[in-house]
Amino acid sequence: MTLESVLVANRGEIALRVVRACRELGIRSVAVYSDADASAAHVRHADDAVHIGKSSASKSYLNADAVLEAARSAGVDAVHPGYGFLSERPSFAAAVEEAGLTFVGPPSSVIATMGDKAAARAVARSADVPVVPGSDEVSSADDAVAAAEEVGYPVLVKASAGGGGRGIRPAASADELRTVVVEAQREASSAFGSGAVYLERALQGPRHVEVQVLADTHGSVVHCFERECSLQRRRQKILEEAPAPGLSSELRSALCDAAVRLSSQVGYVGAGTVEFLVEGDEFFFIEMNTRIQVEHPITEWITGLDLVAEQLRIAGGEPLSVAQDDVVRRGAAIEFRVNAEDPDQDFLPSPGEVTGLELPGGPGVRVDTALMAGDVVPPFYDSLVAKLAVWAPTREQALARGRRALAEYRVEGLPTTIGLHRRLLDEQAVVDGTYDITTLETWLEDSPRG
Amino acid sequence: MTLESVLVANRGEIALRVVRACRELGIRSVAVYSDADASAAHVRHADDAVHIGKSSASKSYLNADAVLEAARSAGVDAVHPGYGFLSERPSFAAAVEEAGLTFVGPPSSVIATMGDKAAARAVARSADVPVVPGSDEVSSADDAVAAAEEVGYPVLVKASAGGGGRGIRPAASADELRTVVVEAQREASSAFGSGAVYLERALQGPRHVEVQVLADTHGSVVHCFERECSLQRRRQKILEEAPAPGLSSELRSALCDAAVRLSSQVGYVGAGTVEFLVEGDEFFFIEMNTRIQVEHPITEWITGLDLVAEQLRIAGGEPLSVAQDDVVRRGAAIEFRVNAEDPDQDFLPSPGEVTGLELPGGPGVRVDTALMAGDVVPPFYDSLVAKLAVWAPTREQALARGRRALAEYRVEGLPTTIGLHRRLLDEQAVVDGTYDITTLETWLEDSPRG
Repeated sequence: MTLESVLVANRGEIALRVVRACRELGIRSVAVYSDADASAAHVRHADDAVHIGKSSASKSYLNADAVLEAARSAGVDAVHPGYGFLSERPSFAAAVEEAGLTFVGPPSSVIATMGDKAAARAVARSADVPVVPGSDEVSSADDAVAAAEEVGYPVLVKASAGGGGRGIRPAASADELRTVVVEAQREASSAFGSGAVYLERALQGPRHVEVQVLADTHGSVVHCFERECSLQRRRQKILEEAPAPGLSSELRSALCDAAVRLSSQVGYVGAGTVEFLVEGDEFFFIEMNTRIQVEHPITEWITGLDLVAEQLRIAGGEPLSVAQDDVVRRGAAIEFRVNAEDPDQDFLPSPGEVTGLELPGGPGVRVDTALMAGDVVPPFYDSLVAKLAVWAPTREQALARGRRALAEYRVEGLPTTIGLHRRLLDEQAVVDGTYDITTLETWLEDSPRG
Repeated sequence: MTLESVLVANRGEIALRVVRACRELGIRSVAVYSDADASAAHVRHADDAVHIGKSSASKSYLNADAVLEAARSAGVDAVHPGYGFLSERPSFAAAVEEAGLTFVGPPSSVIATMGDKAAARAVARSADVPVVPGSDEVSSADDAVAAAEEVGYPVLVKASAGGGGRGIRPAASADELRTVVVEAQREASSAFGSGAVYLERALQGPRHVEVQVLADTHGSVVHCFERECSLQRRRQKILEEAPAPGLSSELRSALCDAAVRLSSQVGYVGAGTVEFLVEGDEFFFIEMNTRIQVEHPITEWITGLDLVAEQLRIAGGEPLSVAQDDVVRRGAAIEFRVNAEDPDQDFLPSPGEVTGLELPGGPGVRVDTALMAGDVVPPFYDSLVAKLAVWAPTREQALARGRRALAEYRVEGLPTTIGLHRRLLDEQAVVDGTYDITTLETWLEDSPRG
């Protein structure tokens, strides 16, 4: 039951990434597109394309009915959701399953479980995976203050249905917590349709380290080592690297084993990412992303695996192409997210036309982009327009290669984060690999050009 | 004595390749350029640039005095010759040495020895490396016919001072040989300044397999496995791959060991390539290229080494970064040479302006090119304008990736060999890896579009 045709239910670089994997596997790819994307690269490169609506995301890439109708009309056997948009909506995965099509990802029930923070923590606990000290759902301010006594201040108030860093508020004291809980409930209610919130201990400068897993429909689960993703602004990752610098081999093994245990426990299928906070020798599960991750190229660099091809093979019922012992690390990789944003203007999104483009090349350089010269970055979607991922035998060489490739990279017509990355690579904490999740925001506040 | 600054005595993609390696190593790079290349990418990307003459190669990149003067005026400590042009001229290497500068390559005496076919064969014999059955130099037609009795027909008449496939003529009988020898002597005399020729057995459909070596100034020599380069037209390689398909592990070991023995024997220093013909279980040394090779990226893909960085480190007196056991193969790589030539018009060079350009990207794709949109391919130099090198865990996957990347690659404004490569990847002998050095020319003759 190898897949013969796949609807690529996304846009931009990740849609092109999936189209490329389909092409290499001999699978027919069908793109979907909004008005704004009629001539986009993911459409040009796919074997076929279906128009699904107006430019606004809610009228196109977030419109589950339109995407499903496109899948039916195109006669595909599977739907690849990419990341973002509909990729982690259990209802969409369920609708794909009900339509008799293959969802390239885990079963909708697994997405639902891992998408519910409290349920996900319960899975982690039952898999003997440590979680950040926290509470059950709290229903009132009094409830929250009582729970916080056990969790310990400072705490974070989190929406049970939240994700991607949204719906999270800190509180350092009982007084502050009383106010914050009520605000958080109100916000969660309107943003996620559920006002349920819970508390978590706020760690002081932890690192964000995540483990890539692959699981097939025959019960095999392997990890593909970890990625260090602490360089974040407003909980959005901007630079990621693999392996995580400064991680002892004991801690690495413990993290990777925990990710495999948790994935097995929940009956995971496909490519997934188990995210942890690491502080000293301790690590805590925070969430699982039940889809391909933006930063998957750095794992592909160090392992030689093609994670998107693995996703498609798994969805076709094939066993994993590798056993755990075959997943071998080599060298170091760094990804730089190129966003159409102006770092000098508080990261204001900067849609517009790309009037000139020169991509870096040569050894150890990979560019994933759907943005070609003459293309227009529309104002309707995420501002990520390209990913530069470099590899070298050592981290120091990878940093040097990153500097070289960033110096070559030229995008004309609109501001991007390329210059920010060039400056970041001169920062001592980045050079030394000693940064944590507070480093980037602190640096941006202090930096004269931040 | 790590190098601080390097004159890059070349142009095009290899000059940019050296500039990139310098940048990553923190070495100042100084480009040279002719009139035609004043705004070329290798000039734009170097730290500095020196004009060395008019557009014709003999007035610029082949003008040793002008290049040396540029090195002196720029105050560099070393000269990297790239490939072609002055890279294998012992007199140029000697002049660099005499100027008190470091030549990035072996000593001029080694270039001289390996550049003399008879001397090179003698080195091979003394290193116990098999050579193609052949003769000493022959001075007359009678001499040649007598020698051919021992070598065995059909024979090839080769110029002692030739190279790159030039100055070679076949003869199937004594009668034919009498004519050919005289012609060959005359041609060698005018082309290479020496009329010396010798005979070699003409093998029937052998494979061209070459071994990459690295040698430092401290006596260490390692091989970096082999490349299969049999797909040639008029002795010019067009597609190369690593590892060589269908090579037994015994034969691979024997070839690699022979290359290391020969390099040690001659006192080699730097990156070099030992070329063999392989027929059945036998292999024969044909020549050594004492410089970086066009097709080095596929070796970099499978070993993870940076061969140009190794060259620069070796030239700076550093020991090799790897011992033999550290040179480990992973997966399969294929290089496609993109030439500004029209395969439908007998590979007529096709200089002109690149009006549009879209490079392939994503996983396992590397492009080395100095050709950007808006650039002009001048009519004065080699027609190689880009190299696409793909990697994947298996040869079959690398072929699929090559097809995918070639489908994405778009050059507008002038004909190239991209379409030829697309068609080649549908050929059964290429798919099966069963081709030899006669395959491409036979196919081009038979192909309706050849």
